[in-house]
Amino acid sequence: MQIELINVGTELMLGRVLNTHQQWLCRRLSDAGHLVTRQVAVADTGAEIQQAVREALGRVETVIVTGGLGPTSDDLTRQRLAELFGRTLHEDAATLARITEFFAARKRPMPAGTQVQALVPEGALVLANAFGTAPGLAIEIKPNPFQSAAGTAWLIMLPGPPRELRPMFTDSVMPLLRRISPGEIVFVCRTMRSIGIGESQAELRIARQLQPLVERGLELGYCARPGQVDVRLVARAAGAEILVQEAEAIVRERLGSHIYGVDDEEIEEVVVRLLLQRGGTLTLAESCTGGQVADRVTNVPGASAVFLGGFVTYSNAVKQTAVGVSAESLAQHGAVSEPVARAMAEGARRLTGADYALGITGIAGPSGGTPEKPVGTVFIALAGPEGTEAWKMFNPLDRLTFKELTAQQALNQLRLALEGR
Amino acid sequence: MQIELINVGTELMLGRVLNTHQQWLCRRLSDAGHLVTRQVAVADTGAEIQQAVREALGRVETVIVTGGLGPTSDDLTRQRLAELFGRTLHEDAATLARITEFFAARKRPMPAGTQVQALVPEGALVLANAFGTAPGLAIEIKPNPFQSAAGTAWLIMLPGPPRELRPMFTDSVMPLLRRISPGEIVFVCRTMRSIGIGESQAELRIARQLQPLVERGLELGYCARPGQVDVRLVARAAGAEILVQEAEAIVRERLGSHIYGVDDEEIEEVVVRLLLQRGGTLTLAESCTGGQVADRVTNVPGASAVFLGGFVTYSNAVKQTAVGVSAESLAQHGAVSEPVARAMAEGARRLTGADYALGITGIAGPSGGTPEKPVGTVFIALAGPEGTEAWKMFNPLDRLTFKELTAQQALNQLRLALEGR
Repeated sequence: MQIELINVGTELMLGRVLNTHQQWLCRRLSDAGHLVTRQVAVADTGAEIQQAVREALGRVETVIVTGGLGPTSDDLTRQRLAELFGRTLHEDAATLARITEFFAARKRPMPAGTQVQALVPEGALVLANAFGTAPGLAIEIKPNPFQSAAGTAWLIMLPGPPRELRPMFTDSVMPLLRRISPGEIVFVCRTMRSIGIGESQAELRIARQLQPLVERGLELGYCARPGQVDVRLVARAAGAEILVQEAEAIVRERLGSHIYGVDDEEIEEVVVRLLLQRGGTLTLAESCTGGQVADRVTNVPGASAVFLGGFVTYSNAVKQTAVGVSAESLAQHGAVSEPVARAMAEGARRLTGADYALGITGIAGPSGGTPEKPVGTVFIALAGPEGTEAWKMFNPLDRLTFKELTAQQALNQLRLALEGR
Repeated sequence: MQIELINVGTELMLGRVLNTHQQWLCRRLSDAGHLVTRQVAVADTGAEIQQAVREALGRVETVIVTGGLGPTSDDLTRQRLAELFGRTLHEDAATLARITEFFAARKRPMPAGTQVQALVPEGALVLANAFGTAPGLAIEIKPNPFQSAAGTAWLIMLPGPPRELRPMFTDSVMPLLRRISPGEIVFVCRTMRSIGIGESQAELRIARQLQPLVERGLELGYCARPGQVDVRLVARAAGAEILVQEAEAIVRERLGSHIYGVDDEEIEEVVVRLLLQRGGTLTLAESCTGGQVADRVTNVPGASAVFLGGFVTYSNAVKQTAVGVSAESLAQHGAVSEPVARAMAEGARRLTGADYALGITGIAGPSGGTPEKPVGTVFIALAGPEGTEAWKMFNPLDRLTFKELTAQQALNQLRLALEGR
């Protein structure tokens, strides 16, 4: 099914907020076999919202609008789109009860103006909001006044906050779309995520082997991010699953241990899964990554079964007091050195009794570099049951990208060790 | 000047890549006083690109297109837009020389197909690419065939990679826009960032007081994020700076200590700045936030001057060994309790000698909740020179939002203490 997406928000047009809805919704819609043919962002004025919807319904039969359903005076989507289709708004008792309950559960008074979110256009479906007060709305438009072939169209409105929109989309919109468009849709997309190999190098290793599959309809895409390359495998016709499986096998064989995950799998999820499977526990001693590895590991539900805790040993004094790096080692080799990375990992492992410990020390910049150890220099050590190993990396990047890539590399060394590579 | 933005890329429509161009370009265009009235994303097929440009030039006189200028077969923007305006393409000698030099400087052979990027539509301006091979293009269209009032229009094409697009925009497009639209443009935008107050509640406190300024031309916007509300103040006519200053004073007075920053300022930047000003140092004992507070603090350049290090005391054993929480306290009150939060903060402060220490313990979920302490329960303690204070929070959210909001609340308590509130 062809779908258009409209994102409403003056903050988008002013460039004050990043539009993450587009990627999130397009991803899920295309994975379900729909074709998002256009995405449009407009300011939250009534005329702009109406005009964008009018044009979109002139091209396709299903339009999703995000934003402008909140309680403040600049939230106009509900009102102005009801108006566009001549639907009156009525207060929906069940929705109002849910909003009242939302505030009661949080022991907060319900502010005046909130009940505007209980207004529902005549004939609209209410999509429950489990994480906020504004429900979503879906209106069947029959006939579609903006196309000459007078078919049925659907207008779906979702609230702007991602933590409200996302579960609502999954729980209410996806089932609705399956109901609107029940035909079988073939679409298989698998993203193979690799680390430690460049984009052209990855392409050189796999492109020729994949060519016969491309001739059978495989679509191949590459996406490079710092230190990583995603290889996208797509097929859309009968036999798609088999075609993608064959392609996956070739990519796995040719890229080997560079492949760490599939689709949205993050390396911290892979590491937590491997530790759970092997019954191993983990601790961390982070300097230049500043706690980011710990943050990422604890993003994984159930991490507490394998992650005991970590140390952010930012200053030299804390490197000594918290994980027992010796003053001599710091004086002799400097805080950014292989011996200190090893001492950090071994100290954290000894203190917590964990099976594995990562020690990470480096120079994130922008200042702190020297000719021998420029900004971007990193030492990663992994202490485990079979001893300690260490690696030197060089990541001369801006501070935030440096932290992200270094955390990724440290988790990758642990992954390789757990996989026995 | 009114401008429309078109982002070309099938990867955008498949949701495989986040569109960061929109925010980046909209931000800079609006700061220069232009009004981005619409942003559109389409797949990289010739028909879609042509149709989007045709529609945009039917509404405004200046259109910026990103993407589709590369050397591969799916890069169609240059060719198809030249076609749309009946302009022939010719190979531009200077551009070809620059591309050849680009590869020579990198000691890499120039791949076949690259020279397509030296093709320039008749009469187009070439915008030099300092960081890649595809130049940008700007075409003056006179008269604009898609509007009845036959004025002059401009079509500007920019390459997709951000590190090529951004300097080209700054160095070539901004001067071109000043030449096209030489009049003085007034635009002042300030975003007041608040925490700990709901969107409707914030509006209730300020809307009436701001109403006289709205009548004088102030544009007011609200944007809610977990635990936070941004209030946006915009003015576009003579006296804009004074109008926004008056509005800022009212917002500050009415929202008081809820306001933690302005524009892009993050709370961790505010905290690091306050610590630097007061000569204070910081340590952390994080359980449920899993290192996120440390990660955020160390995102701020220069954080090492105030942040000594932190402890991610995830397991009970590490709470005891790393920061000296007593086994009795854990047994009597449980790991998620005010006494344990206090002991974590005080232990981290004692061990590192920092002036301030935050202790954070809570239940992130999805599992681990009990009837007395459901998922979302949090205790935050702040130990400082004048003793220890503690707060109980309730953040019943998904795991990632829970961590983000809890980290924000902990940093906010530190901010309030440092501001002496």
